[in-house]
Amino acid sequence: MTPTMTLIKGGRIITAVDDYVADILVKGERIVSIGLDLDAGPDARVIDAAGLLVFPGGVDCHTHMENTFGPSVTADNFASGTRSAAFGGTTTIIDFALQTAGTSPLDAISRAQSKAASVASIDYGFHVIVTQVDERVLGDMQYAIRHEGVSSFKMFMAYPGTVMSDDAAIFQAMRMVGQHGGMIALHAENGTIIDLLIREALAQGHTSPRYHALTRPAIMEGEATHRGIKLAELAEAPVYFVHLSAKEALKHVIEARDLGIPVFAETCPHYLFFDESAYSDDSFDLARYVMSPPLRSKEAQKALWTALKTDDLQLISTDHCPYCMKEGHRGNVNQKPLGRDDFSKIPNGVPGVETRMTVVYDGGVRSGRITLNRFVELMSTAPAKLFGLFPKKGTIAVGSDADIVLFDPNKSHTISADTQHSDCDFTLFEGREVTGRVKKVLLRGELLIDDGDWVGRTGQGAFVARGELGGHW
Amino acid sequence: MTPTMTLIKGGRIITAVDDYVADILVKGERIVSIGLDLDAGPDARVIDAAGLLVFPGGVDCHTHMENTFGPSVTADNFASGTRSAAFGGTTTIIDFALQTAGTSPLDAISRAQSKAASVASIDYGFHVIVTQVDERVLGDMQYAIRHEGVSSFKMFMAYPGTVMSDDAAIFQAMRMVGQHGGMIALHAENGTIIDLLIREALAQGHTSPRYHALTRPAIMEGEATHRGIKLAELAEAPVYFVHLSAKEALKHVIEARDLGIPVFAETCPHYLFFDESAYSDDSFDLARYVMSPPLRSKEAQKALWTALKTDDLQLISTDHCPYCMKEGHRGNVNQKPLGRDDFSKIPNGVPGVETRMTVVYDGGVRSGRITLNRFVELMSTAPAKLFGLFPKKGTIAVGSDADIVLFDPNKSHTISADTQHSDCDFTLFEGREVTGRVKKVLLRGELLIDDGDWVGRTGQGAFVARGELGGHW
Amino acid sequence: MTPTMTLIKGGRIITAVDDYVADILVKGERIVSIGLDLDAGPDARVIDAAGLLVFPGGVDCHTHMENTFGPSVTADNFASGTRSAAFGGTTTIIDFALQTAGTSPLDAISRAQSKAASVASIDYGFHVIVTQVDERVLGDMQYAIRHEGVSSFKMFMAYPGTVMSDDAAIFQAMRMVGQHGGMIALHAENGTIIDLLIREALAQGHTSPRYHALTRPAIMEGEATHRGIKLAELAEAPVYFVHLSAKEALKHVIEARDLGIPVFAETCPHYLFFDESAYSDDSFDLARYVMSPPLRSKEAQKALWTALKTDDLQLISTDHCPYCMKEGHRGNVNQKPLGRDDFSKIPNGVPGVETRMTVVYDGGVRSGRITLNRFVELMSTAPAKLFGLFPKKGTIAVGSDADIVLFDPNKSHTISADTQHSDCDFTLFEGREVTGRVKKVLLRGELLIDDGDWVGRTGQGAFVARGELGGHW
Amino acid sequence: MTPTMTLIKGGRIITAVDDYVADILVKGERIVSIGLDLDAGPDARVIDAAGLLVFPGGVDCHTHMENTFGPSVTADNFASGTRSAAFGGTTTIIDFALQTAGTSPLDAISRAQSKAASVASIDYGFHVIVTQVDERVLGDMQYAIRHEGVSSFKMFMAYPGTVMSDDAAIFQAMRMVGQHGGMIALHAENGTIIDLLIREALAQGHTSPRYHALTRPAIMEGEATHRGIKLAELAEAPVYFVHLSAKEALKHVIEARDLGIPVFAETCPHYLFFDESAYSDDSFDLARYVMSPPLRSKEAQKALWTALKTDDLQLISTDHCPYCMKEGHRGNVNQKPLGRDDFSKIPNGVPGVETRMTVVYDGGVRSGRITLNRFVELMSTAPAKLFGLFPKKGTIAVGSDADIVLFDPNKSHTISADTQHSDCDFTLFEGREVTGRVKKVLLRGELLIDDGDWVGRTGQGAFVARGELGGHW
Repeated sequence: MTPTMTLIKGGRIITAVDDYVADILVKGERIVSIGLDLDAGPDARVIDAAGLLVFPGGVDCHTHMENTFGPSVTADNFASGTRSAAFGGTTTIIDFALQTAGTSPLDAISRAQSKAASVASIDYGFHVIVTQVDERVLGDMQYAIRHEGVSSFKMFMAYPGTVMSDDAAIFQAMRMVGQHGGMIALHAENGTIIDLLIREALAQGHTSPRYHALTRPAIMEGEATHRGIKLAELAEAPVYFVHLSAKEALKHVIEARDLGIPVFAETCPHYLFFDESAYSDDSFDLARYVMSPPLRSKEAQKALWTALKTDDLQLISTDHCPYCMKEGHRGNVNQKPLGRDDFSKIPNGVPGVETRMTVVYDGGVRSGRITLNRFVELMSTAPAKLFGLFPKKGTIAVGSDADIVLFDPNKSHTISADTQHSDCDFTLFEGREVTGRVKKVLLRGELLIDDGDWVGRTGQGAFVARGELGGHW
Repeated sequence: MTPTMTLIKGGRIITAVDDYVADILVKGERIVSIGLDLDAGPDARVIDAAGLLVFPGGVDCHTHMENTFGPSVTADNFASGTRSAAFGGTTTIIDFALQTAGTSPLDAISRAQSKAASVASIDYGFHVIVTQVDERVLGDMQYAIRHEGVSSFKMFMAYPGTVMSDDAAIFQAMRMVGQHGGMIALHAENGTIIDLLIREALAQGHTSPRYHALTRPAIMEGEATHRGIKLAELAEAPVYFVHLSAKEALKHVIEARDLGIPVFAETCPHYLFFDESAYSDDSFDLARYVMSPPLRSKEAQKALWTALKTDDLQLISTDHCPYCMKEGHRGNVNQKPLGRDDFSKIPNGVPGVETRMTVVYDGGVRSGRITLNRFVELMSTAPAKLFGLFPKKGTIAVGSDADIVLFDPNKSHTISADTQHSDCDFTLFEGREVTGRVKKVLLRGELLIDDGDWVGRTGQGAFVARGELGGHW
Repeated sequence: MTPTMTLIKGGRIITAVDDYVADILVKGERIVSIGLDLDAGPDARVIDAAGLLVFPGGVDCHTHMENTFGPSVTADNFASGTRSAAFGGTTTIIDFALQTAGTSPLDAISRAQSKAASVASIDYGFHVIVTQVDERVLGDMQYAIRHEGVSSFKMFMAYPGTVMSDDAAIFQAMRMVGQHGGMIALHAENGTIIDLLIREALAQGHTSPRYHALTRPAIMEGEATHRGIKLAELAEAPVYFVHLSAKEALKHVIEARDLGIPVFAETCPHYLFFDESAYSDDSFDLARYVMSPPLRSKEAQKALWTALKTDDLQLISTDHCPYCMKEGHRGNVNQKPLGRDDFSKIPNGVPGVETRMTVVYDGGVRSGRITLNRFVELMSTAPAKLFGLFPKKGTIAVGSDADIVLFDPNKSHTISADTQHSDCDFTLFEGREVTGRVKKVLLRGELLIDDGDWVGRTGQGAFVARGELGGHW
Repeated sequence: MTPTMTLIKGGRIITAVDDYVADILVKGERIVSIGLDLDAGPDARVIDAAGLLVFPGGVDCHTHMENTFGPSVTADNFASGTRSAAFGGTTTIIDFALQTAGTSPLDAISRAQSKAASVASIDYGFHVIVTQVDERVLGDMQYAIRHEGVSSFKMFMAYPGTVMSDDAAIFQAMRMVGQHGGMIALHAENGTIIDLLIREALAQGHTSPRYHALTRPAIMEGEATHRGIKLAELAEAPVYFVHLSAKEALKHVIEARDLGIPVFAETCPHYLFFDESAYSDDSFDLARYVMSPPLRSKEAQKALWTALKTDDLQLISTDHCPYCMKEGHRGNVNQKPLGRDDFSKIPNGVPGVETRMTVVYDGGVRSGRITLNRFVELMSTAPAKLFGLFPKKGTIAVGSDADIVLFDPNKSHTISADTQHSDCDFTLFEGREVTGRVKKVLLRGELLIDDGDWVGRTGQGAFVARGELGGHW
């Protein structure tokens, strides 16, 4: 069968470095040519991109589809979650595979694969969440890097008793992956202290959602981040910090990067657009703002934006981890209301995959905080490079996957959960009017979104095997 | 007349972000298409790039062709100097136009234009060296940005009595250019102190070249750099530091950049490969190491390499300013020997345009200090973006000038002044064996260098007008 | 003649380190014994100090008596100024001797000596203000250290055209004094920039007092302070910063001190109790807040207090430099009103010697910012040690001068210019109620102040020769 | 009975701030008078101090007498250890009371009291080592501050499975003592990591003493120190770091102190005079250098000396914890040789009480690194103030205990274990010739040491109750 030819004509192509007007010719899944006045022959599908920005498909390195948090499961599974992501301009996610007690990371990968396969609408990879480390686990991690296309692993410095690892486990894992081309991603909060503060707050009758924030002090994110960096230095390994939110944490990332130490970090849109002033009263409605880490100070928010500009933060991931505010929405139970009488039982997380690109374009590029090139780098190129997806993903270049977003920079709309495609019933950005909208999305040459309509297929997404990391830094 | 078509086939194209194999189709002066298996028709010239790296042409933002230093004129004029640069893979330079006492910056531009026109073999622009600031001069600077394609200006914190400006002059110039899209480049050394130290050294009978270094302490480059940054902060303007060499100076650049302040700096190859241990005795032969600032400590060198990786230094320029070690070489007189009995009379400077790309590839990329993408960014993309040449220069993309270097990554050779094309009689890199060689060079679609042979024309280079800076940072 | 014996009974003696209740026996000018239940014989004068704090006499290292600023002379000469100081608990000042153009520092000392001799009521020394440096001047400075008891010299980085020295002059002076046991005190503001800003402000019609502050930006105090430190490092000499006010300056002092570099700095009471919010409108009444540097931000004020605690600032001097708000007050003319139409003509300075100890006790010790021991260190011990007056001055110990302040820690009063003893007609602290009052003051064993009454003699003060500095740091 | 009168005549008295020649009159246990030509009557004992320095008795805040480390007990009990300390000029120690599993801190105090009572020759206090924290323990700690004269507590971030506390326990203890005038002293090394490294080293057959050092990396002391500071900040409590040795740890102490945060730290003489180059081979003789933390780099050593000068380190304690190199020396068994085949079984520690004052005088004061006043502050005043012993201890002032050291600054001698009075069989300073010797020592008015002879009594020492801390900082 002859591969489909698609010609995207006359768009303004933006990569992390370039900015020019040209046509893109796609043959099958890949970009085969970029040029002026390209001719694809009469059979080619032609997409007019005049007046539109042409971005590489978004890469979101931090999502939780069908994620379990105690008795709760996220509102989105791989079907609804990846469709929502596609509407947001994201064509690849890296989700998680959870190693449960006494099992192998390889089992975790199998389970994750089976959840995503046949339902994901966009491409996906996995980080394994490692919760227990011994010689066999380390061996399986090494196997995963070499043979399973999984080269990143997440470990927790928080949540003692469930997923928290101690410093020795983290160090051992770091050292192993440092030698074999992998990377550890850390959730850096001092769980031991937070656990105490939570118990004390509850003992004092402080049960409302805002105590979630009050029991997770920024200084303890700073502490854990510093500790994580020092463990990585000792292990001679790179380290990646997920959902960095606190200025106290950022400070250590900056110091390390100034010395050329391979320390990387993401932040999330909610930290860039919301702050701790949200935790204003004891209303349960504030459960929507319960994510970990919690929202931080306005001063921290400003520092995050600066760090996105200076490359002290390298990417913006969503930490998409949606739990509904109402029980029963689209059949989801055990959602946020679980913690009505005890904030510590509120499942942690917010949705985000559908709004990431739009809010960062509007609040970052249009407001003059970051350039268009930097926007593409944050949304797509940097995550792809950092996590071994590049050049298949993350750029618009000959030979790369034709994961392409056509973006209308002038179209305004108002964000609302009602018009989104997640199975979650709220978005933090409800009611926000933004300018800039995802118009068309191609995944490996096939249209998923066409002028706001879903034209893709469930199961169209494929697992992306990643190899050894590190070639790009 | 039909424009020439050139097809560069099968090279490995490297930009600041991408890395892929494809053909490049050039029509006339521009790249019109990049793709797999491109067909340019029977009349096209075809260049086989298989096995070669394809870089955008080098951009060197700091050269001194036909430069006057007291009674001395550099060994290279625009004819010999630009040919030498082309052999080194550089297709654009930004040289200098010197405002002399009582004259306008616009006169300086005219004089520089007339020196370069009809003899330059590669493209060129100018920074105006501003030595005197008043309302009229400021007005002429603004005019130069708007109408003359000259948007950067160099000022000196050193050399009192000749080119040094005081802080108020620098501040006024910064403030004006900050408002109108220009940038001040600073030579940051505390000239008042250096002048005293030189007089004291000479008074004590210390006349040999190494006293050049001993009278220009690193701490005073640090001081001036800090002062320059603070003047720029007060002026709310960007600032660029030329030939940064001292760790003491770098520290301040890092601090400012961490805060998101628009501070930029270049270093030069000589600081990356040589150090102060060169100043080992009182031999006059050390006059070859007389440049300003002088070579610094090994520790500084290491910090410079780290900063190139972390983007605390954004580019590597040559400060190509060649004076011969022997009088009369190719007719050049008043060269280094002028200072045989008085180091302060040795014209300051070393050649560099022909070796820049090669030594940085060999010592940077091959040694693992920087990635290939970063190499291209340092050599070409960053200088083009910073100084308003992008996207015409600095990348390989559709629509950009076809300034292209084909580089053989495996070819070894030994550097020698004898086989170079500068009119200078020495190179600091004499005898160094390096791997990686410029094989072919195209300037706007025309071959200048073909397998080591000069096939270009004198006068082929053109002035490149630059507009307002700042869109890329 | 038998020396007078004085017995101070039962006070709570505070030094920079100790805190105990005992009697002090003074014989003639010196303390001869400290103990419990001392008996001085029937002829001794006995002073009951029960319930009082006993401090060593205050040492104020920065005063301007009979100081000329253009056409203006300070409202206080050595007679009125030293009496005012005594009422404030200060028994020693270091004032200034101004080297005028073409004259020797030694002449400056002679002139200053003749102004103070026979009229000063407390002890005094001099810093020479050096405005011109050459070999002869350097020689005379060395002579002053060795033979004239003057081992500190002030130089200005501000006020071009009158007293400003360039970096080379400062460096030369630092290097010389560094070798001979002296120290340079710097007024650190970038005068070149300030001069420009003043001219620009006036050209724009901004003539009111608050433009004094707006034309002296904190960042330029920071710049000059950094430069001064680097000059001192290069000179291998200690350096002292007068009237440090800006956080931007403090930062550099802290960094240097962390490295063990001999950098010292004072701040002044006005920076500790007032801030830039005082410059609220264009009223000429704000001329009272015209001192250099001007008042800074609240954030700076907080940082100054912290630095006083951490010893990053070592002393609190007054920069007592009083000019009346009204012409003709006690015969003083050419005072603040001189600058009614041009802020740059307002003589810079405020009174302070009479309030220093009281306001710092009230706002520092009573408010819990500093300990009692630290208070004594700041007021007396540190200045005495730093400037070569110790142990003659600065402590309560056997053998030291009996310069003693009896201080009632519980007595409240309201500060007013009307009840003070300066010839100046205002105080910034007007109307402030403070707790803690100077009750009795002895200078070398003789009472100057007795329960608020003046019982001293004009001319009772003596010059204190100081030797080589540096033994105490 | 009339108290003994002692008159110390003509010595040069040094306190943390003063330096003068005078007589000291002691009545009973206290200093009653200091003056010139004091007369104590015919019955007084007169000690001629002409030509001698007179210091307040040394205060050593970190000793381990009769300390248990697994199966080992230190070579010195309170009898031999305090006699050895007295010979070194130390008249007060703060030793440790170990809370064992399931018991109260109050029990620990009782046990420690009974060990010391009737055998100690100098005064003593205790820090309680807290190994387990719950509500009752916290209550008992508060009781100890209020009623037992024990206001400081040591906790371990190292030694998991024995004495290590987790972050939550440390935080809880800090918070409680912060509210009640106590302080937590931390042993800051990341025990979890060290434990892993030790196990790995042994598994690889690395059993010799130098692996003790190699498994305790400086970076992990830095990490723990940072963590300790952040816990203290969160707890709003002061914190004290014992035996700080690494530059990586010092950095965090400096940063915190610059901000005025109440962070304190000691270092020990062995870190000031020895470095990691001692761990040169696999000889078991290097067991003498097995203490925790181990010796660090020369660069760290230099930084420690600087910090002693800048007050970033406030005291020099010994961590006297002597284990013999030979089994059976004076009946001591289970000493260093226990770890002949396994470095992790070598009891950690070195002797030090007898050499502290002498080596710091010789290497600190005579070498020009610190002043005489600072020497006294480090040896005596700062520890007394920090730990609530002042003004009873730590100074020479009227009313203070007559704990006095007469020190001959010019007497040279060679240090040797043979001539010392500890029951330990080695000293790291063996063979070192030093200048400056303890000549006479008085404890509360009674001579312990007289020209090198022991004239004291066993049991002469008394427990010193300490109250709430914090008044002095």
